[in-house]
Amino acid sequence: MKTLRTVADLRSALAGHRREGETIALVPTMGYLHEGHLSLVRAARERAGVVVVSLFVNPSQFNEAADLEAYPRDEARDVDLASAAGADILFAPALDEVYPQGFGTQVRVGGALTDRLEGAHRGAEHFHGVTTVVCKLMNMVGPDVAVFGQKDAQQALVLRRMVADLDMPVRIDVAPTVREPDGLALSSRNVRLHGDDRRRALALHRGLQAATAALAGGERDAARLTAAARSAMDELGVQPEYLALVDPGTLDPLDAVDGREALLAVAARVGDVRLIDNTILIPDPVHTDATVATCLS
Amino acid sequence: MKTLRTVADLRSALAGHRREGETIALVPTMGYLHEGHLSLVRAARERAGVVVVSLFVNPSQFNEAADLEAYPRDEARDVDLASAAGADILFAPALDEVYPQGFGTQVRVGGALTDRLEGAHRGAEHFHGVTTVVCKLMNMVGPDVAVFGQKDAQQALVLRRMVADLDMPVRIDVAPTVREPDGLALSSRNVRLHGDDRRRALALHRGLQAATAALAGGERDAARLTAAARSAMDELGVQPEYLALVDPGTLDPLDAVDGREALLAVAARVGDVRLIDNTILIPDPVHTDATVATCLS
Repeated sequence: MKTLRTVADLRSALAGHRREGETIALVPTMGYLHEGHLSLVRAARERAGVVVVSLFVNPSQFNEAADLEAYPRDEARDVDLASAAGADILFAPALDEVYPQGFGTQVRVGGALTDRLEGAHRGAEHFHGVTTVVCKLMNMVGPDVAVFGQKDAQQALVLRRMVADLDMPVRIDVAPTVREPDGLALSSRNVRLHGDDRRRALALHRGLQAATAALAGGERDAARLTAAARSAMDELGVQPEYLALVDPGTLDPLDAVDGREALLAVAARVGDVRLIDNTILIPDPVHTDATVATCLS
Repeated sequence: MKTLRTVADLRSALAGHRREGETIALVPTMGYLHEGHLSLVRAARERAGVVVVSLFVNPSQFNEAADLEAYPRDEARDVDLASAAGADILFAPALDEVYPQGFGTQVRVGGALTDRLEGAHRGAEHFHGVTTVVCKLMNMVGPDVAVFGQKDAQQALVLRRMVADLDMPVRIDVAPTVREPDGLALSSRNVRLHGDDRRRALALHRGLQAATAALAGGERDAARLTAAARSAMDELGVQPEYLALVDPGTLDPLDAVDGREALLAVAARVGDVRLIDNTILIPDPVHTDATVATCLS
């Protein structure tokens, strides 16, 4: 695996592969790689002849200076992990390679996709920072496919909207959330969970599980499903910043799980670490058929 | 020349050329082609193996509904002209091919480049409309080079900023303004100049000429150069919306032509038609050397 620092070096490294018609995959990361990232690298490896992992802690998507400051970094470790997972190129540019003097362009996805959930709590600028840097990385690499994680479900939706709207010739694939054995969704921020906070951080997963169990028990109502989740979180003393049942394509709020898949998304602060998680609620097939029959009747 | 309507057809038509390593050039237009556009097509022809001319009247860059409504259209004529000038593909998509249901992404260049001159008078949204559609066209076509006209000098600067900032793998070339024999800069909007307005429209060029003559006579001061231009425009009863001496790279206002090239840009309404024009003021070499000597001393 090569570690490259400049767009020029990256492009020359890829030019030959592109001429040969090899498929190129991109896995954008902010580093401090964990098993979640590595699952994306492996998914990319299955899909492409050349796998590029980018490592760039993008300041413009941080809405809190303290979070950016505290974001963990360890490039030497990332090099070993990315290489072992099958990456061909680690692209780790410096800040001024990505945002040189005079930089002044922004790619924005507007509307509900960036206003709701994370957008409502971190501000839409967070997503504008994400779309801008990912658009740049796509143009630097020219991938056929880019792989993102389901843990950041809203981010994946926003990026798919950007790619469709700007006619970018790339496919976005989303890989499942990877969890610790106890269910905590992997996140680079988890290393900042100290003492009892590590245990309390389970609240998000427990909440999602409680709602899933309620659904399996026949509950369909959004208010009662989220109440079940809140109650489970409360047992660990964690209050959600948001906990919302929404359409997984549009993020429109749902009153109930009504025969189609629904996204249950949660964010919460545990100690000084902000965590997110989500699950797809799939209605029971029997109930689904009944609902469809009702709709058609 | 083929006329294509969909991104899918466009991409299949270009795929073979791209595999063969042929250079692809794009000339984005809003149609109603005139000799100015055709000079861009010929410039593209000299630079590339495949020349794509796009024809799309982009609603999002019009700040006045009446201007959009009145914008002249004649595709049959455009087909003949583009073909005769050497285009290989005319890409003329329908509105919903470019902006399908649910579209919600914008590419924005911020700061002085979009706030000043046209941005101050038409609003920065005009340029956001331009950058968004050009970003899309670039991604649809995947050109090696795109050719724009110097008449829209600010637009070319904004697009160069976008391409650099988003790392788009395309070069932007700018071709000189084409003029009528009497000096009027070609514009699709010129067909809307009726009666005496056609004669009065010369005011913009006459103003630029007056400033150029004043410079040749030794005048360097921005206020006096623009006063000379205003006076010439006034003779035709035309008042500029703006008339500004600026740095041709940053659009920063200049107090004088001080040894480097300066952009003198003008906009004015003649009848109900808004026109723009510009010229590069090049200081006299003797004066330039003197200025440099002064600066170095």
